Amino acid sequence: MSAPSIPKGTRDFTPVEMARRNYIFDTIRSVFMLYGYQPIETPAMENLSTLMGKYGEEGDKLLFKVLNSGDFLAGTDEKSLLARDSNKLLKHVSEKGLRYDLTVPFARFVVQHRNDIVFPFKRYQIQPVWRADRPQKGRYREFYQCDVDVVGSNSLIYEAEMARIAEDIFQRLGISVIIKLNNRKILAGIAEVIGEAGRITDITVAIDKLEKIGLAAVNDELRQKGLSDEAVTNLQPILKLQGSNQQKLEKLTAILEHSETGLKGIEEMKTVFSYLDALKLTAEVQLDLTLARGLNYYTGAIIEIKARDIQMGSISGGGRYDDLTGIFGMPGVSGVGISFGADRIYDVMHELSLFPESTTQTTRVMVANFGGEAELAGLSFLYRLQKAQISSEMYPEPAKMKKQFTYADQKKIPFIVIIGSEELSTGQYQVKNMVTGEQQKYSPAEIVAKLLGLNI
Amino acid sequence: MSAPSIPKGTRDFTPVEMARRNYIFDTIRSVFMLYGYQPIETPAMENLSTLMGKYGEEGDKLLFKVLNSGDFLAGTDEKSLLARDSNKLLKHVSEKGLRYDLTVPFARFVVQHRNDIVFPFKRYQIQPVWRADRPQKGRYREFYQCDVDVVGSNSLIYEAEMARIAEDIFQRLGISVIIKLNNRKILAGIAEVIGEAGRITDITVAIDKLEKIGLAAVNDELRQKGLSDEAVTNLQPILKLQGSNQQKLEKLTAILEHSETGLKGIEEMKTVFSYLDALKLTAEVQLDLTLARGLNYYTGAIIEIKARDIQMGSISGGGRYDDLTGIFGMPGVSGVGISFGADRIYDVMHELSLFPESTTQTTRVMVANFGGEAELAGLSFLYRLQKAQISSEMYPEPAKMKKQFTYADQKKIPFIVIIGSEELSTGQYQVKNMVTGEQQKYSPAEIVAKLLGLNI
Repeated sequence: MSAPSIPKGTRDFTPVEMARRNYIFDTIRSVFMLYGYQPIETPAMENLSTLMGKYGEEGDKLLFKVLNSGDFLAGTDEKSLLARDSNKLLKHVSEKGLRYDLTVPFARFVVQHRNDIVFPFKRYQIQPVWRADRPQKGRYREFYQCDVDVVGSNSLIYEAEMARIAEDIFQRLGISVIIKLNNRKILAGIAEVIGEAGRITDITVAIDKLEKIGLAAVNDELRQKGLSDEAVTNLQPILKLQGSNQQKLEKLTAILEHSETGLKGIEEMKTVFSYLDALKLTAEVQLDLTLARGLNYYTGAIIEIKARDIQMGSISGGGRYDDLTGIFGMPGVSGVGISFGADRIYDVMHELSLFPESTTQTTRVMVANFGGEAELAGLSFLYRLQKAQISSEMYPEPAKMKKQFTYADQKKIPFIVIIGSEELSTGQYQVKNMVTGEQQKYSPAEIVAKLLGLNI
Repeated sequence: MSAPSIPKGTRDFTPVEMARRNYIFDTIRSVFMLYGYQPIETPAMENLSTLMGKYGEEGDKLLFKVLNSGDFLAGTDEKSLLARDSNKLLKHVSEKGLRYDLTVPFARFVVQHRNDIVFPFKRYQIQPVWRADRPQKGRYREFYQCDVDVVGSNSLIYEAEMARIAEDIFQRLGISVIIKLNNRKILAGIAEVIGEAGRITDITVAIDKLEKIGLAAVNDELRQKGLSDEAVTNLQPILKLQGSNQQKLEKLTAILEHSETGLKGIEEMKTVFSYLDALKLTAEVQLDLTLARGLNYYTGAIIEIKARDIQMGSISGGGRYDDLTGIFGMPGVSGVGISFGADRIYDVMHELSLFPESTTQTTRVMVANFGGEAELAGLSFLYRLQKAQISSEMYPEPAKMKKQFTYADQKKIPFIVIIGSEELSTGQYQVKNMVTGEQQKYSPAEIVAKLLGLNI
């Protein structure tokens, strides 16, 4: 029998990893709730009709499809079968897929439950997603997303709230961050004023790469995409825009003076900044015109969070989308949200040693086992510890002390209570502190009180 | 466009349902941790080689299989393809499946991580599982299991611990329960002494149904399975066994006096009862010989928990298995565990109205929005509330008060803070209690203090 393994790109999480991951999830969850967001969950499997066509052609390929139950070949299309046409056969053998993100299921949820939802609907969702991506360092085929969104309002207060939520979460986790902001309307305005209004996607895709590939390569790419030399030349002052957010917005106001959309974007950005002031945001906020993010559905604000002290892609990002639910037949519902990637955050915290010692949740007390009557007395004392909500366990058999101590040591249990025949007769139990090595006798009540931190 | 929907047998969870479910999960999790169990997680997808053949032929059919990525028909077996033989083609088009339970992935985990694990390994796992079962009331294709197991020890302390964990969890949830215990060795002993040692599976499957179909039908089934009339006659005193656990065990000791295995089972049961006494278990514990549970892998104790005040199948169950990891090439690792079904527990709590009011987590304060300067002052106050960890939100736009109040009302937000032009000039904000209707003025600091429950 070959050694068991798991599918590539997936992971098991050990207790130590779980404790750290839960520390991240619990922090994120408590902040989401603090800002008035409520949890929902959606099924791992969605109908393929819900998922297909929402992530582009590439995304369709990366969806994990679930084979129909039973005799999946029954009623399949003979021609596709004989031609071995996987694409055509697909719709006959599979009608469900694993969710690719939390955004499309959320849109589906909003449409399906529209009559039971109070709008603006502030929801968060923390669940795994699956992508048949090529696995590589830091990229997995199963990973958790932590999404927070509000739909049913155009208020820019929510843009500011997203930035504030990110600041709060990363402050709690001890990660120093830069919050980058942009606005799709400003990008559209730029495309307009350089005379390439129809080319906004090409332009944003190219300038999104500015930091990665540099100005010259971006210009090359723009020309390859068919932008006129004049347009590329006109774009340069924008790509090279420097100064404070205030200064950038002033320069942009001049550059975009003939684009209504562009000026609207600047206006929005100014309002968001005023809200951020009122919310006393202390993290650095950068207006970054090169920020476009891959997704095409953003229509207003674009947000991205980067860790300061480490070279790593964004650890959170999102933006405003004006018509997410439109794809499911419910137009005109604007929303804004951001997503936190647990794996990236984990990696940052791990590399910067930011996990507090206390995240490793473990048993606090082990009761040693001496068998017979002492074992029963040990169990009674265990009951008492657990009644007092002290995480504890008894060694399962009267093994040699060395073996029992090794177990406690490996499991990093800080206290051992010893109840042997002498302790049984005196009613004074030994407590060994596994960190200091100290050993002392106490009554059972004293031990419980000491462990509870009572001052006796 | 047709209205979006989700695959049959799956569910969305709304904020209210999520709050209740989290109340159940949090309770279960905190008890697991109190008894020294640590969390692990495994991937949703496992290799089919890990899953297939572990749940019987029926189980194999109920596995959700995931289609291989890309051109899944490439390299498929031409004969199976042309014969439309779904079964044979399966291994060519799918190599992964969704986990069917948490037990087999746990066994796989233990074998795979054997060198990093401290044994006895006390782990819990709370994750969804998937089964292509026919959906019906209370049965879903995606549902959560909450499993707690310890592997690597034969100690019967752990059998007692499982019963104690169940008692503790259901006590916290307010569900009054009966804990039923049996032992597979006693069942084996019974098969032995009635002269049908090879028939233990047939016998246990039949007597498992005693409560459901009655004695006469069970006897019929036993005869149909080929048991001799003599064996069926000899079985009757056992099926009709009455009295206290103590009395039952005494009668059984006489009946099984010639079965070594049977006597071992009785011995084990007595030890477990002595441990339960030491652990001061107060829930009713019943020795129930009709308890066999479907699964064939139990080798010692069998445990099942039933709710007292409601007609419902078991809400938790488990037992001792001596060789779970043997299927993955690591023999001789004994384990014991139980599983809690979140859906059944939810249904019981819902029908008995056991969910505390406070489970519905929601925003505590809404700051009303009057626009302009008042809006900015509102945001500043919101920041102050959130800094004090008071869950709060601001209405996103200066809508009519009626609309803002309706939102707070629908979201069950208990307090509204009103900051209009008058409040701005006096620095005294209005607080409306949405439950009592009361409205009073306070300074911002007073509001925060009052909401924190400080005595000012």
